[in-house]
Amino acid sequence: MTKLSIIYYSSYGTAHQMATRLARTAESQGAEVRLRRVRETAPDEVVQSVEGWAAHAASVADQPVAEPEDLAWADAVIMGSGTRYGHVTSQLQSFIDTLGPLWQEGRLADKVYSAFTSSQTLHGGQETTLLAMITTFAHFGGIIVPPGYTDQVKFNDGNPYGVGVVTGAGGVDDAANDALDHMVTRVLTIAQRLES
Amino acid sequence: MTKLSIIYYSSYGTAHQMATRLARTAESQGAEVRLRRVRETAPDEVVQSVEGWAAHAASVADQPVAEPEDLAWADAVIMGSGTRYGHVTSQLQSFIDTLGPLWQEGRLADKVYSAFTSSQTLHGGQETTLLAMITTFAHFGGIIVPPGYTDQVKFNDGNPYGVGVVTGAGGVDDAANDALDHMVTRVLTIAQRLES
Amino acid sequence: MTKLSIIYYSSYGTAHQMATRLARTAESQGAEVRLRRVRETAPDEVVQSVEGWAAHAASVADQPVAEPEDLAWADAVIMGSGTRYGHVTSQLQSFIDTLGPLWQEGRLADKVYSAFTSSQTLHGGQETTLLAMITTFAHFGGIIVPPGYTDQVKFNDGNPYGVGVVTGAGGVDDAANDALDHMVTRVLTIAQRLES
Amino acid sequence: MTKLSIIYYSSYGTAHQMATRLARTAESQGAEVRLRRVRETAPDEVVQSVEGWAAHAASVADQPVAEPEDLAWADAVIMGSGTRYGHVTSQLQSFIDTLGPLWQEGRLADKVYSAFTSSQTLHGGQETTLLAMITTFAHFGGIIVPPGYTDQVKFNDGNPYGVGVVTGAGGVDDAANDALDHMVTRVLTIAQRLES
Repeated sequence: MTKLSIIYYSSYGTAHQMATRLARTAESQGAEVRLRRVRETAPDEVVQSVEGWAAHAASVADQPVAEPEDLAWADAVIMGSGTRYGHVTSQLQSFIDTLGPLWQEGRLADKVYSAFTSSQTLHGGQETTLLAMITTFAHFGGIIVPPGYTDQVKFNDGNPYGVGVVTGAGGVDDAANDALDHMVTRVLTIAQRLES
Repeated sequence: MTKLSIIYYSSYGTAHQMATRLARTAESQGAEVRLRRVRETAPDEVVQSVEGWAAHAASVADQPVAEPEDLAWADAVIMGSGTRYGHVTSQLQSFIDTLGPLWQEGRLADKVYSAFTSSQTLHGGQETTLLAMITTFAHFGGIIVPPGYTDQVKFNDGNPYGVGVVTGAGGVDDAANDALDHMVTRVLTIAQRLES
Repeated sequence: MTKLSIIYYSSYGTAHQMATRLARTAESQGAEVRLRRVRETAPDEVVQSVEGWAAHAASVADQPVAEPEDLAWADAVIMGSGTRYGHVTSQLQSFIDTLGPLWQEGRLADKVYSAFTSSQTLHGGQETTLLAMITTFAHFGGIIVPPGYTDQVKFNDGNPYGVGVVTGAGGVDDAANDALDHMVTRVLTIAQRLES
Repeated sequence: MTKLSIIYYSSYGTAHQMATRLARTAESQGAEVRLRRVRETAPDEVVQSVEGWAAHAASVADQPVAEPEDLAWADAVIMGSGTRYGHVTSQLQSFIDTLGPLWQEGRLADKVYSAFTSSQTLHGGQETTLLAMITTFAHFGGIIVPPGYTDQVKFNDGNPYGVGVVTGAGGVDDAANDALDHMVTRVLTIAQRLES
């Protein structure tokens, strides 16, 4: 039974919606899944001052937060984050910055890794944010499995580096869900081949 | 009189040392300089648990922290950060994540930007971290001025994207100081040409 | 009078159309423009075997090809290329590979640089191809002027790193032309401020 | 028996030396290896005008050149190239540009990929060139296996994205050979786990 950790940060809910889709599809295929949001690092008064942000934070308040051990446990890891000027959010980066001890012990290596993102505008850093995560996975010594164009659905969503959703356009629409399903299925398939 | 903001994060002092060198050289050339460390976002018990980190934090405790307004004020901005798996630190990214209001008003655009970094190992993400900052500057609508090989000193330090110091090797040695002096001089020269 | 070189490679005509738009807008603003296609490097039988490629090649056969000297001459350079797996085309890279002598003499430095691209699919490497050119400009010691979001038109085309056209979608439509006009106007404005 | 293709371009022999080391190590571990240089695309008079380039070209003239089919045949592919302003050489890119038909048939996907490079100066684009190849592998739908820091030898050579040699420093020294041996061993191990 393949162990999959989905580690993400979501301000307004789009990345959360994508992560949840990945988790359900993975579970329906028999994977053991840890769906984990990273800890909020913005001051609470900042979060509360933005309606959509506060609402999403409240809605996931009782859900488990990611710990480094969730990476060590997993056979495969999918990370997700909104984009901030061509990067992952500082919240996800804060989590990544705590992985030093596991990294030094080599416990992040040789796992399957893939990534997803969302942004407000069409090209507002989707590719660069996904490549930022791929760069991080290389430091981990990961086995990186971006979707490429390995299925016809990728010619709809068009992003070979991972799955990206434009919130200002369709949001998590059918094309996005198809791309998410394809990505997680491929990640699990390759993780299983590696285990056998 | 050119206004230069140097915005950086330093855990153990190397980036602080680089930033201070940039500030002194800029001031000796008549620039008005704001030398600003970004706020620490790691929990205090984490900082205190690492000797070198705690010591550096104590030594800069009374120095001013960066505010978004320090970017709006400046004609030129040099950012610096250690590397974390091919990225800037989450501390610097946290600061960048607060720039939304200024960005929306277009107040980050049309300034001169350049970057520096430090890492433990030789190729441990120095180029990728500098390019991550360049990517962010592109989102700002900045006028990006990496050093390239515009002086003989760059063939010693070898990094065209900014200035990088390997702490595990020589640290901030003469070649690094030469490269820092060259970078800030070039940034100021181009900022002055743009103002006139 | 600002000297602008537009250096591009086009297989099927989209990048050519974009380059021509940039040239006309620049000339209407009083710039002296060199519009230069890079030399085809694919074997002639390959070009002739693809109808659209052969047709475009024939249509530009009498137009001047780029020489390294066109960069040395210019105050500002805009480069363009289709994308090939997240990179510029080998034709543009072949031209770049011939710039060694100019680079060693420092004659590529301190010019304003910006970039454009086109691709078949939505996210098929547009950001990465533009960043590849920005990376090259850093090696040149260029003054890099990506558009960012410095005008409302950029929220339509959405790409802060340059201008990208999706040929499979609208092609060089009004939003693309607006983005091209904005980019070249900004490049010329900054080049003029640097000259004065 | 794992099939490994090593596809590289070398002007002066460093990448050739690295590729040869990879091939010998792989063969000693029982892999079936195709060691293939990509076709020279620079005009012959240019090659002949540079002593070291002409000498290396003559020394490999009778060795087989890479064909797209060498990728389709392989279970694992390691690509190598010198750096050109933060990119692969146009010679390697020219080969990549011919892969369209295989790519469209999905015959580049689901293979193990890794990369190596060499450059004259220390940080002269080693990381960016390796990431450029990683970006290309993502378009292929590859299973990307960078070395990370999965062995102590990587703390000597320091590059998590692949193996890089600085020709102006030690060249292909013991640390480089160790890093090459480690990379190819890991690539073969993962390819074998995927096959089983």
